[in-house]
Amino acid sequence: MNNITISQRAKNTPASAIRKLVPLAEKAKEKGIKVYHLNIGQPDLPTPQEVLDYIHNFTQKTLQYAPSAGIKEAVLSWQKFYADKGMSFEQKDIVVTAGGSEALLFAFMTVCDPGDEILIFEPFYTSYSILTAMGNISFRPILTTNQNGYHLPDAKTIEKAITKKTKAIIICNPNNPTGTLYTEEEVQTITSVVKKYNLFLISDETYQEIVFDGKKVIPFAKDQEIAQNLIICDSVSKRFNSCGARVGCVVSQNQEFMSAVLRLGQGRLSVATVEQLAFIALLQNHKNYTDSIKKVYQSRRDVVVEGLKKIPGATFKVPEGAFYIMPKLPIDDSDRFAEFLLNDFSDNKETVMIAPATGFYSTPGLGKDEIRIAYVLDEESLKRSIELLGLAIRKYNRV
Amino acid sequence: MNNITISQRAKNTPASAIRKLVPLAEKAKEKGIKVYHLNIGQPDLPTPQEVLDYIHNFTQKTLQYAPSAGIKEAVLSWQKFYADKGMSFEQKDIVVTAGGSEALLFAFMTVCDPGDEILIFEPFYTSYSILTAMGNISFRPILTTNQNGYHLPDAKTIEKAITKKTKAIIICNPNNPTGTLYTEEEVQTITSVVKKYNLFLISDETYQEIVFDGKKVIPFAKDQEIAQNLIICDSVSKRFNSCGARVGCVVSQNQEFMSAVLRLGQGRLSVATVEQLAFIALLQNHKNYTDSIKKVYQSRRDVVVEGLKKIPGATFKVPEGAFYIMPKLPIDDSDRFAEFLLNDFSDNKETVMIAPATGFYSTPGLGKDEIRIAYVLDEESLKRSIELLGLAIRKYNRV
Repeated sequence: MNNITISQRAKNTPASAIRKLVPLAEKAKEKGIKVYHLNIGQPDLPTPQEVLDYIHNFTQKTLQYAPSAGIKEAVLSWQKFYADKGMSFEQKDIVVTAGGSEALLFAFMTVCDPGDEILIFEPFYTSYSILTAMGNISFRPILTTNQNGYHLPDAKTIEKAITKKTKAIIICNPNNPTGTLYTEEEVQTITSVVKKYNLFLISDETYQEIVFDGKKVIPFAKDQEIAQNLIICDSVSKRFNSCGARVGCVVSQNQEFMSAVLRLGQGRLSVATVEQLAFIALLQNHKNYTDSIKKVYQSRRDVVVEGLKKIPGATFKVPEGAFYIMPKLPIDDSDRFAEFLLNDFSDNKETVMIAPATGFYSTPGLGKDEIRIAYVLDEESLKRSIELLGLAIRKYNRV
Repeated sequence: MNNITISQRAKNTPASAIRKLVPLAEKAKEKGIKVYHLNIGQPDLPTPQEVLDYIHNFTQKTLQYAPSAGIKEAVLSWQKFYADKGMSFEQKDIVVTAGGSEALLFAFMTVCDPGDEILIFEPFYTSYSILTAMGNISFRPILTTNQNGYHLPDAKTIEKAITKKTKAIIICNPNNPTGTLYTEEEVQTITSVVKKYNLFLISDETYQEIVFDGKKVIPFAKDQEIAQNLIICDSVSKRFNSCGARVGCVVSQNQEFMSAVLRLGQGRLSVATVEQLAFIALLQNHKNYTDSIKKVYQSRRDVVVEGLKKIPGATFKVPEGAFYIMPKLPIDDSDRFAEFLLNDFSDNKETVMIAPATGFYSTPGLGKDEIRIAYVLDEESLKRSIELLGLAIRKYNRV
C-alpha cells in the first residue's frame, strides 16, 4: 500500500513570500532586537471610529447567517460607493465576499477551467498564485521593469502572450507590489486588448483611493463596451485600514458570471455578519476619511523616497499610489538579504523586515535585486527604517 | 469572435437547494403570510452572551490581519476544546478557518486533484457539492435509506464503491441532513475501510455536541492508527448558535496535509479577527452552554416526532443528533411540494418552508418523497409547523 499523500495541486501551491520570513522576525525579537515591519501591507493607522463603534454597539442577539450574496444594506452601500466614483452598478451586480481574497478566488474559479491561463504583469501580488493554484489555473506573466517604473508594455507585446487558453487579464491599479498608477493610455491599451480578444478583465481595485500628487485612477468601468468583460475585485482592507475585517466584494454586469459567483457564495454560506454591517455607513460616505489617509501616505512616500535617494545604487521611479515602492538595490539575492536583515544585522538593536521581490515574480530568477517596501509606519520609523536598510546593504556586501 | 462565457466548472456548480426557494418565501411574506422556517439550519437560540460581550468590548484600535493559521490564543482554545473531548492535538495540527465551509474547501483541495473522487453517503449536505465543484472533484455516492434510519451499509458495500480515483471518505456525525448518529460499529466499519485502502477520512464534526438520549459520539480521533488519515472540519456555527460568525477550523496530525492547508490559508490571508477572539473563552469552557442547548433540541425533536406520527404515510426513524429529521412523506415531488407550500398553500395565513430532499442527493431521481426539517424554532411554532405540513400534504394530494 502506498503512503498517503496530498494532491498535486496542493503540492504545487506556493507559500506566501511575505509570511515565510515571520519565524526569523520572531527570533530577532526574542534576541531583543526591534524589527521595523515594512514587509506586509498591514497599515498602522486606526480603523475608522464609526466601524469600531458599530461593532461595539452590535445589537443582534443571535449571530445569524447573512444571505449568500451579502446583506442587502451592505450590497447597497457598495453600490453607493461605486456610484460616488461615477460607476453605475445594480444590486444584482454585487456579491459581498470575505475580503478581496475571496472575490479573487471566485473570479478565478468562475472564469477559468483547469489548464486555462490568465495574463498578468510581473511583478505581481503573491496571493494571486496561491488562489489560482487551488483551481489549476496558470498565469502567463508579462514583464514590467524597475527602469520603466513598472509601467505596462504596448498592446502588441501583450497580444503576443495570448494563447487559445487565455481567458482573462488581471490588473491591480494602483499596483501592489510596485505602487505604479497606470496612465489613461495604459488603461486604454488594456481595454483595447480585452475587446479585441473578448477576454475577461479582472480589476483589483483595493488601493483605488490611495493615489498621490493630485492624480486620479482611470476606472475601467467608464467604458461600457467592456461591461460584459469587466470583473471588479475589491476590499475594505487598505482604504479603511481594516485588513482583519475580511470584507470585500466582487462586481460585474455580466449576469452569467454573477449567477455563478452567487452559487459559489452559497457553497460557503455567508460572510461574517458583524463586519458586513459595520462598513455600511463608511462605504456611503468615506471621502473625509480616505482623503485624510491619502495625505498621510503621500507624505510617507516622500520620506521613503528621500531616504532611498541616499542609498548608493538604489534605483526607482517615484510611485504614485498604494503604499508600496519596489526599488532595485545593489544586492545579489533579495531572499538572502531579507534573511540577513533578520538573522545577521542590527544597528543599535534595531533592524528592518522587507519583502524580497522574488516572491512577486513567477519567472524564476527575477526579483533578486529588488525588494518591496510597504510604508505602513509613521514617518520617523520610516526614516530610521530606510537608514537601517542603507547600513545593512553596506554590511551585506562586505560579508 | 465567440461570446464571452464562464468556465465549465462554474457552469457545473449546483445552486443551493435550500437557498433557491428564498424568493418564493419572500413573495409569500409580501402576501401577508407567516412562514415558519424549517428549511435552513439557522438556529433561533441566542448566541452565548460571552461571545457578544467580547464583540461589544473589543479594544483594538486597528482591525489587523490575523496570522494565516489563526491567532495563537484562538488555536490554543480549539486545542483545549478537543482535549476536553479526549482528543489530543498540537498547535501545528490546527488552522482556524472562515467557518466549517472553508475548512471543507481546504480539505477537498488538499486531498484531491481534478478528477479524483470522494466517497460520500447519500443523502448529504448540499454545500459539499458546491465546494468540490470548484475543484473539479467528484463524489461517489453510497446510498443510505429512510427505512434504515439512514444508517451506513457494511464494509463490503462501501469497498465496492472504491476506485483508483478514490482519495477520501467524508462523513458527518451526527449527520446533516438526516440527524443520524452513527454507532460504534459503524465508526469501526469506516475506520477499517480507511485503513485497508489508506484513504483520507474527512470528518465533519459540526454537530458533535448535539446528541440526544444520553448517547455519545464515537470520535474517529480515538483510533491513533488513522492519525495520518483523519482530517476534522469543524465550526462554531451550530453548537454555539453563531452561524454568522464564520469561524471554524481544520485539524489533522498529518503534517504534509497541514502545511498545504496553511499555504492555502496564506492565499486568503486571515480569518476575521474579532470573531476569532470572541470564541476563545467559550471554546475552553462550553459544557454548560452546549448541555443546555442539547436539552432544548432533544425536547424539540420529540415535538416534531409526535407531530409527524400523526401524518398518515410519514415514515422515519427517530434521529439521535443534530437538529434535523428527514421523513419520507406521501408526496410525489418534494421540489414541487416545497414550492406548493410557499405559492399555493396557507392555513390561517400561515405556511411552512422545508428543504426538499432532492437537493441532498447527487443521484438523480432520489429524494422526491423526502424532506429535511430543521427544528430550529420554539416548540409551539414547531407543533404548528408540523400541523401545517400535514394539512398541506392533504391539500397537495388533492390538487
